[in-house]
Amino acid sequence: MHLNTIEIKPIGKIFTPHYTIQSIPIQPIAAEGVKGHIELLPKYVDGLKDIEGFSHIILIYYFHKIRGFELQVTPFMDTVKHGIFATRSPKRPNAMGISTVRLNSVDANILHIEDVDMLNGTPLIDIKPFFSKFDNRIDAKAGWLDARGDIPVERMISDKRFKQ
Amino acid sequence: MHLNTIEIKPIGKIFTPHYTIQSIPIQPIAAEGVKGHIELLPKYVDGLKDIEGFSHIILIYYFHKIRGFELQVTPFMDTVKHGIFATRSPKRPNAMGISTVRLNSVDANILHIEDVDMLNGTPLIDIKPFFSKFDNRIDAKAGWLDARGDIPVERMISDKRFKQ
Repeated sequence: MHLNTIEIKPIGKIFTPHYTIQSIPIQPIAAEGVKGHIELLPKYVDGLKDIEGFSHIILIYYFHKIRGFELQVTPFMDTVKHGIFATRSPKRPNAMGISTVRLNSVDANILHIEDVDMLNGTPLIDIKPFFSKFDNRIDAKAGWLDARGDIPVERMISDKRFKQ
Repeated sequence: MHLNTIEIKPIGKIFTPHYTIQSIPIQPIAAEGVKGHIELLPKYVDGLKDIEGFSHIILIYYFHKIRGFELQVTPFMDTVKHGIFATRSPKRPNAMGISTVRLNSVDANILHIEDVDMLNGTPLIDIKPFFSKFDNRIDAKAGWLDARGDIPVERMISDKRFKQ
Protein backbone atom coordinates (compact mmCIF):
# COMPACT_ATOMS: atom_id res chain seq x y z
CA MET A 1 0.00 0.00 0.00
CA HIS A 2 1.53 3.29 -1.10
CA LEU A 3 1.01 6.18 1.32
CA ASN A 4 2.61 9.59 0.93
CA THR A 5 3.66 11.66 3.92
CA ILE A 6 1.36 14.65 4.44
CA GLU A 7 2.71 18.05 5.49
CA ILE A 8 0.48 20.00 7.83
CA LYS A 9 1.02 23.68 8.59
CA PRO A 10 -0.93 24.68 11.73
CA ILE A 11 -3.41 27.53 11.25
CA GLY A 12 -2.99 29.00 14.73
CA LYS A 13 -2.68 28.15 18.40
CA ILE A 14 -5.08 27.33 21.22
CA PHE A 15 -4.49 29.09 24.53
CA THR A 16 -5.91 27.53 27.70
CA PRO A 17 -5.32 27.61 31.46
CA HIS A 18 -3.80 24.10 31.27
CA TYR A 19 -0.04 24.51 31.53
CA THR A 20 1.18 20.96 32.25
CA ILE A 21 0.31 17.60 30.71
CA GLN A 22 -1.08 16.35 34.00
CA SER A 23 -4.25 17.72 35.61
CA ILE A 24 -5.98 18.52 32.31
CA PRO A 25 -9.70 17.73 32.03
CA ILE A 26 -9.81 14.55 29.93
CA GLN A 27 -12.53 15.83 27.58
CA PRO A 28 -14.53 19.04 27.00
CA ILE A 29 -17.34 17.63 29.18
CA ALA A 30 -14.83 17.55 32.05
CA ALA A 31 -13.92 21.18 31.32
CA GLU A 32 -17.34 22.81 31.45
CA GLY A 33 -16.99 26.57 31.67
CA VAL A 34 -13.20 26.54 31.34
CA LYS A 35 -12.34 29.41 29.04
CA GLY A 36 -9.62 29.75 26.45
CA HIS A 37 -9.04 31.33 23.08
CA ILE A 38 -7.78 30.54 19.62
CA GLU A 39 -5.34 32.83 17.91
CA LEU A 40 -5.79 32.20 14.20
CA LEU A 41 -3.02 33.30 11.85
CA PRO A 42 -4.22 36.68 10.52
CA LYS A 43 -3.96 35.49 6.90
CA TYR A 44 -6.86 33.09 7.53
CA VAL A 45 -9.26 35.57 9.12
CA ASP A 46 -11.57 35.72 6.08
CA GLY A 47 -12.23 32.02 6.62
CA LEU A 48 -14.18 32.85 9.80
CA LYS A 49 -17.12 34.52 8.02
CA ASP A 50 -20.43 33.33 9.56
CA ILE A 51 -18.75 31.10 12.15
CA GLU A 52 -20.30 33.13 14.98
CA GLY A 53 -23.68 31.55 14.25
CA PHE A 54 -22.39 28.24 15.58
CA SER A 55 -22.61 27.49 19.29
CA HIS A 56 -20.04 24.68 18.99
CA ILE A 57 -16.99 24.11 16.82
CA ILE A 58 -14.88 20.99 16.32
CA LEU A 59 -11.16 21.59 16.74
CA ILE A 60 -8.55 19.30 15.22
CA TYR A 61 -5.20 19.84 16.85
CA TYR A 62 -1.75 18.39 17.44
CA PHE A 63 -0.67 16.84 20.75
CA HIS A 64 2.64 18.67 20.57
CA LYS A 65 4.09 17.40 23.84
CA ILE A 66 3.57 13.72 23.06
CA ARG A 67 6.59 11.75 21.85
CA GLY A 68 6.14 8.41 20.09
CA PHE A 69 3.12 6.15 20.35
CA GLU A 70 1.87 2.94 21.92
CA LEU A 71 -0.51 0.51 20.24
CA GLN A 72 -2.16 -0.47 23.52
CA VAL A 73 -2.67 1.89 26.44
CA THR A 74 -4.46 2.02 29.75
CA PRO A 75 -6.67 5.07 29.26
CA PHE A 76 -7.71 7.48 32.01
CA MET A 77 -11.17 5.89 32.00
CA ASP A 78 -10.01 2.33 32.72
CA THR A 79 -7.49 0.15 34.54
CA VAL A 80 -6.81 -2.30 31.72
CA LYS A 81 -5.25 -1.90 28.27
CA HIS A 82 -7.19 -1.21 25.09
CA GLY A 83 -6.07 -0.72 21.51
CA ILE A 84 -5.06 2.91 20.90
CA PHE A 85 -7.77 3.24 18.20
CA ALA A 86 -10.39 2.18 20.76
CA THR A 87 -9.33 5.04 23.05
CA ARG A 88 -8.97 8.82 22.85
CA SER A 89 -5.52 8.75 24.45
CA PRO A 90 -2.95 11.12 22.94
CA LYS A 91 -0.10 8.64 22.41
CA ARG A 92 -1.32 7.69 18.90
CA PRO A 93 0.53 6.94 15.63
CA ASN A 94 -0.57 10.41 14.47
CA ALA A 95 -0.77 12.52 17.62
CA MET A 96 -3.93 14.38 16.71
CA GLY A 97 -6.85 15.27 18.93
CA ILE A 98 -10.39 16.46 18.32
CA SER A 99 -12.51 18.42 20.77
CA THR A 100 -15.91 19.99 20.37
CA VAL A 101 -15.87 23.27 22.29
CA ARG A 102 -18.31 26.12 22.79
CA LEU A 103 -17.75 29.22 20.68
CA ASN A 104 -18.57 32.35 22.69
CA SER A 105 -17.47 35.17 20.39
CA VAL A 106 -15.11 36.14 17.62
CA ASP A 107 -12.94 39.26 17.63
CA ALA A 108 -11.01 39.53 14.32
CA ASN A 109 -8.60 36.54 14.41
CA ILE A 110 -9.33 35.65 18.06
CA LEU A 111 -12.02 33.07 18.87
CA HIS A 112 -13.17 33.01 22.47
CA ILE A 113 -14.02 29.44 23.40
CA GLU A 114 -15.18 27.43 26.41
CA ASP A 115 -14.91 23.81 27.64
CA VAL A 116 -11.23 23.62 26.65
CA ASP A 117 -9.42 20.35 27.42
CA MET A 118 -6.10 20.86 25.65
CA LEU A 119 -2.68 22.08 26.71
CA ASN A 120 -1.87 25.79 26.48
CA GLY A 121 -0.11 26.59 23.21
CA THR A 122 -1.56 23.61 21.31
CA PRO A 123 -1.07 23.94 17.51
CA LEU A 124 -4.44 24.11 15.75
CA ILE A 125 -4.88 22.21 12.48
CA ASP A 126 -8.50 22.85 11.54
CA ILE A 127 -11.80 24.31 12.73
CA LYS A 128 -15.09 22.76 11.59
CA PRO A 129 -18.60 23.90 12.48
CA PHE A 130 -20.53 21.41 14.63
CA PHE A 131 -23.88 20.55 13.04
CA SER A 132 -26.28 18.30 14.97
CA LYS A 133 -27.56 16.60 11.84
CA PHE A 134 -24.03 15.64 10.76
CA ASP A 135 -22.33 15.01 14.08
CA ASN A 136 -24.70 13.56 16.67
CA ARG A 137 -25.14 9.80 16.90
CA ILE A 138 -27.80 9.31 19.53
CA ASP A 139 -27.91 5.51 19.38
CA ALA A 140 -24.16 4.87 19.46
CA LYS A 141 -22.84 1.90 21.44
CA ALA A 142 -19.42 2.30 23.01
CA GLY A 143 -18.08 -1.07 24.16
CA TRP A 144 -15.64 -0.75 27.07
CA LEU A 145 -16.56 2.91 27.58
CA ASP A 146 -20.25 2.06 28.06
CA ALA A 147 -19.18 -0.62 30.53
CA ARG A 148 -17.38 2.11 32.53
CA GLY A 149 -20.49 4.29 32.54
CA ASP A 150 -20.37 4.67 36.31
CA ILE A 151 -17.18 6.76 36.09
CA PRO A 152 -17.75 10.50 36.70
CA VAL A 153 -16.05 11.68 33.49
CA GLU A 154 -17.16 15.22 34.24
CA ARG A 155 -14.66 15.40 37.07
CA MET A 156 -11.77 13.48 35.54
CA ILE A 157 -8.37 15.01 34.95
CA SER A 158 -5.24 13.60 33.34
CA ASP A 159 -2.15 12.28 35.11
CA LYS A 160 1.41 11.84 33.84
CA ARG A 161 0.96 8.45 32.17
CA PHE A 162 1.41 9.65 28.57
CA LYS A 163 4.27 12.04 29.30
CA GLN A 164 7.06 9.82 27.94
CA MET B 1 3.53 33.13 16.38
CA HIS B 2 5.93 30.23 15.87
CA LEU B 3 4.34 27.13 14.31
CA ASN B 4 6.29 24.07 13.21
CA THR B 5 5.25 22.00 10.21
CA ILE B 6 3.81 18.64 11.26
CA GLU B 7 4.56 15.45 9.34
CA ILE B 8 1.71 12.99 9.12
CA LYS B 9 2.16 9.41 7.94
CA PRO B 10 -1.21 7.88 7.05
CA ILE B 11 -2.09 4.69 8.93
CA GLY B 12 -4.01 3.07 6.08
CA LYS B 13 -6.54 3.70 3.34
CA ILE B 14 -10.32 3.89 3.08
CA PHE B 15 -11.95 2.03 0.21
CA THR B 16 -15.42 3.09 -0.90
CA PRO B 17 -17.66 2.84 -3.98
CA HIS B 18 -17.07 6.57 -4.67
CA TYR B 19 -14.59 6.80 -7.54
CA THR B 20 -14.87 10.44 -8.64
CA ILE B 21 -14.95 13.71 -6.71
CA GLN B 22 -18.44 14.46 -7.95
CA SER B 23 -21.53 12.45 -6.97
CA ILE B 24 -20.25 11.61 -3.48
CA PRO B 25 -22.74 11.79 -0.58
CA ILE B 26 -21.87 15.04 1.20
CA GLN B 27 -21.87 13.49 4.69
CA PRO B 28 -22.30 10.03 6.28
CA ILE B 29 -26.01 10.79 6.83
CA ALA B 30 -26.32 11.10 3.03
CA ALA B 31 -24.58 7.72 2.64
CA GLU B 32 -26.73 5.53 4.86
CA GLY B 33 -26.03 1.89 4.17
CA VAL B 34 -23.18 2.58 1.73
CA LYS B 35 -20.48 0.06 2.57
CA GLY B 36 -16.72 0.37 2.44
CA HIS B 37 -13.67 -0.84 4.30
CA ILE B 38 -10.50 0.39 5.89
CA GLU B 39 -7.22 -1.33 5.23
CA LEU B 40 -5.03 -0.52 8.20
CA LEU B 41 -1.28 -0.96 7.83
CA PRO B 42 -0.60 -4.40 9.36
CA LYS B 43 1.94 -2.93 11.82
CA TYR B 44 -0.91 -1.09 13.60
CA VAL B 45 -3.27 -4.06 13.99
CA ASP B 46 -2.67 -4.38 17.75
CA GLY B 47 -4.13 -0.89 18.09
CA LEU B 48 -7.58 -2.27 17.17
CA LYS B 49 -8.06 -4.29 20.38
CA ASP B 50 -11.63 -3.78 21.71
CA ILE B 51 -12.68 -1.48 18.87
CA GLU B 52 -15.38 -3.95 17.82
CA GLY B 53 -17.48 -2.92 20.83
CA PHE B 54 -18.09 0.48 19.23
CA SER B 55 -21.00 0.91 16.81
CA HIS B 56 -19.48 4.13 15.41
CA ILE B 57 -15.95 5.35 14.83
CA ILE B 58 -14.66 8.81 13.91
CA LEU B 59 -12.29 8.81 10.94
CA ILE B 60 -9.81 11.62 10.34
CA TYR B 61 -8.59 11.53 6.77
CA TYR B 62 -6.87 13.51 4.03
CA PHE B 63 -8.72 15.00 1.05
CA HIS B 64 -5.98 13.76 -1.30
CA LYS B 65 -7.53 15.01 -4.54
CA ILE B 66 -7.95 18.61 -3.36
CA ARG B 67 -5.34 21.15 -4.48
CA GLY B 68 -4.98 24.49 -2.71
CA PHE B 69 -7.63 26.16 -0.57
CA GLU B 70 -10.14 28.99 -0.59
CA LEU B 71 -11.03 31.11 2.43
CA GLN B 72 -14.63 31.55 1.39
CA VAL B 73 -16.64 28.95 -0.48
CA THR B 74 -20.19 28.28 -1.57
CA PRO B 75 -20.83 24.95 0.12
CA PHE B 76 -23.10 22.20 -1.25
CA MET B 77 -25.73 23.19 1.30
CA ASP B 78 -26.03 26.84 0.24
CA THR B 79 -25.97 29.26 -2.67
CA VAL B 80 -23.92 31.99 -0.99
CA LYS B 81 -20.36 32.10 0.30
CA HIS B 82 -19.32 31.32 3.86
CA GLY B 83 -15.93 31.27 5.57
CA ILE B 84 -14.21 27.92 5.03
CA PHE B 85 -14.10 27.34 8.82
CA ALA B 86 -17.89 27.76 8.95
CA THR B 87 -18.30 24.96 6.37
CA ARG B 88 -17.27 21.32 5.99
CA SER B 89 -16.05 21.88 2.44
CA PRO B 90 -12.80 20.07 1.53
CA LYS B 91 -10.87 23.04 0.06
CA ARG B 92 -9.40 24.00 3.45
CA PRO B 93 -5.96 25.29 4.51
CA ASN B 94 -5.30 21.77 5.85
CA ALA B 95 -7.32 19.44 3.64
CA MET B 96 -8.51 17.14 6.37
CA GLY B 97 -11.95 15.60 6.82
CA ILE B 98 -13.76 13.88 9.66
CA SER B 99 -16.61 11.44 9.29
CA THR B 100 -18.40 9.34 11.86
CA VAL B 101 -19.17 5.99 10.25
CA ARG B 102 -20.73 2.72 11.40
CA LEU B 103 -18.32 -0.07 12.29
CA ASN B 104 -19.78 -3.42 11.23
CA SER B 105 -16.93 -5.84 11.87
CA VAL B 106 -13.17 -6.21 12.10
CA ASP B 107 -11.16 -8.92 10.35
CA ALA B 108 -7.45 -8.62 11.28
CA ASN B 109 -6.37 -5.27 9.72
CA ILE B 110 -9.60 -4.79 7.73
CA LEU B 111 -12.46 -2.76 9.24
CA HIS B 112 -15.80 -3.14 7.52
CA ILE B 113 -17.65 0.16 7.72
CA GLU B 114 -20.91 1.72 6.55
CA ASP B 115 -22.20 5.24 5.75
CA VAL B 116 -19.01 6.12 3.87
CA ASP B 117 -18.85 9.59 2.28
CA MET B 118 -15.23 9.77 1.14
CA LEU B 119 -13.43 9.07 -2.11
CA ASN B 120 -12.09 5.58 -2.79
CA GLY B 121 -8.42 5.32 -1.76
CA THR B 122 -8.58 8.14 0.81
CA PRO B 123 -5.52 8.15 3.11
CA LEU B 124 -6.57 7.55 6.73
CA ILE B 125 -4.88 9.58 9.47
CA ASP B 126 -6.59 8.40 12.66
CA ILE B 127 -9.46 6.33 14.04
CA LYS B 128 -11.18 7.38 17.27
CA PRO B 129 -14.03 5.61 19.05
CA PHE B 130 -17.28 7.58 19.06
CA PHE B 131 -18.63 7.97 22.60
CA SER B 132 -22.02 9.63 23.10
CA LYS B 133 -20.97 11.30 26.34
CA PHE B 134 -17.94 12.93 24.67
CA ASP B 135 -19.22 13.60 21.18
CA ASN B 136 -22.92 14.44 21.13
CA ARG B 137 -24.03 18.06 21.56
CA ILE B 138 -27.79 17.90 21.61
CA ASP B 139 -28.41 21.62 22.05
CA ALA B 140 -25.99 22.88 19.39
CA LYS B 141 -26.99 25.88 17.28
CA ALA B 142 -25.66 25.95 13.73
CA GLY B 143 -26.10 29.41 12.20
CA TRP B 144 -26.47 29.31 8.40
CA LEU B 145 -26.82 25.51 8.44
CA ASP B 146 -29.85 25.69 10.76
CA ALA B 147 -31.31 28.33 8.45
CA ARG B 148 -31.02 25.82 5.57
CA GLY B 149 -32.76 23.15 7.63
CA ASP B 150 -35.29 22.49 4.87
CA ILE B 151 -32.61 21.01 2.62
CA PRO B 152 -32.80 17.21 2.32
CA VAL B 153 -29.15 16.57 3.29
CA GLU B 154 -29.84 12.85 3.31
CA ARG B 155 -30.11 12.88 -0.48
CA MET B 156 -27.35 15.37 -1.29
CA ILE B 157 -24.34 14.48 -3.39
CA SER B 158 -21.29 16.51 -4.37
CA ASP B 159 -20.64 18.19 -7.70
CA LYS B 160 -17.36 19.31 -9.29
CA ARG B 161 -17.09 22.69 -7.57
CA PHE B 162 -14.04 21.84 -5.42
CA LYS B 163 -12.18 19.91 -8.09
CA GLN B 164 -9.71 22.65 -9.00
